[in-house]
Amino acid sequence: MASTTPHHGSPLLYLDDLSAGQRFTGGSRVVVDEAAIRAFAAQFDPQPFHLDPEAATETLFGQLVASGWHTAGVTMRLQVETIPIAGGLVGAAAAVEWPRPTLPGDVLRIEAEILEVRHSRSRPDRGLVRIVTETKNDRDEVVQVVTATIVVPRRPD
Amino acid sequence: MASTTPHHGSPLLYLDDLSAGQRFTGGSRVVVDEAAIRAFAAQFDPQPFHLDPEAATETLFGQLVASGWHTAGVTMRLQVETIPIAGGLVGAAAAVEWPRPTLPGDVLRIEAEILEVRHSRSRPDRGLVRIVTETKNDRDEVVQVVTATIVVPRRPD
Repeated sequence: MASTTPHHGSPLLYLDDLSAGQRFTGGSRVVVDEAAIRAFAAQFDPQPFHLDPEAATETLFGQLVASGWHTAGVTMRLQVETIPIAGGLVGAAAAVEWPRPTLPGDVLRIEAEILEVRHSRSRPDRGLVRIVTETKNDRDEVVQVVTATIVVPRRPD
Repeated sequence: MASTTPHHGSPLLYLDDLSAGQRFTGGSRVVVDEAAIRAFAAQFDPQPFHLDPEAATETLFGQLVASGWHTAGVTMRLQVETIPIAGGLVGAAAAVEWPRPTLPGDVLRIEAEILEVRHSRSRPDRGLVRIVTETKNDRDEVVQVVTATIVVPRRPD
């Protein structure tokens, strides 16, 4: 897996810096090749359509495709490299859709947008931010949409 | 990552064999050790609380914890070993919650239950099955709940 252009050096964003509609795209890309697809599958999703190009032709997909959880992992990496939230990206829940699979050789990138910023009543030092992230391949097709709620600290006084 | 007791040899289940309330537990276990947590994080979620036991003490978690997506990957492996669906486990969408993190040395297992079985009108050869899977550690604490909709073929005539 190759990856480029982390956000290291960008100023970290606190709850106070975030608002609905704010977008993050960044330049990070991850290439998902056949070896990476098979290695992930061997460890986490050992099914023929993720493991074996030949056996995959007999399945629903008709060819080798990445596990959806592999696409989710690559997306997380792109989020870490693209969205410079203070305290890190810590999710309590996520809703994931996979409109189409990631194919061998796909180059993935993300486009993220903040949907909602809520200050916590019980914990005034933090809040919850809802963010949607589309993962696209190099044909501009969406391979994943994940909507997550993350915990973000307020800027310390 | 060690893993035991796959379902290989169990008869494959078709849509006609499934109904709401049906449960799958199986004997599969996966040990998530510190090396596995750090290896997953280096590839997919490179944040201090997943990478570095020392740096993790300064974070929200106060110690090294597994990426939620690592817990999701381990859960997928346990599902593949526990739920013998014909055609494999193919999800179009999933809602994931992480009530608490997976810690180094945790031994994970799953308990799955079918929530709903819907026959497809447009594609009489298949249907959609909604299934909830709880992932528990060896202290019987829930580390993940994932609700997924999977595509399941009808038994061929």
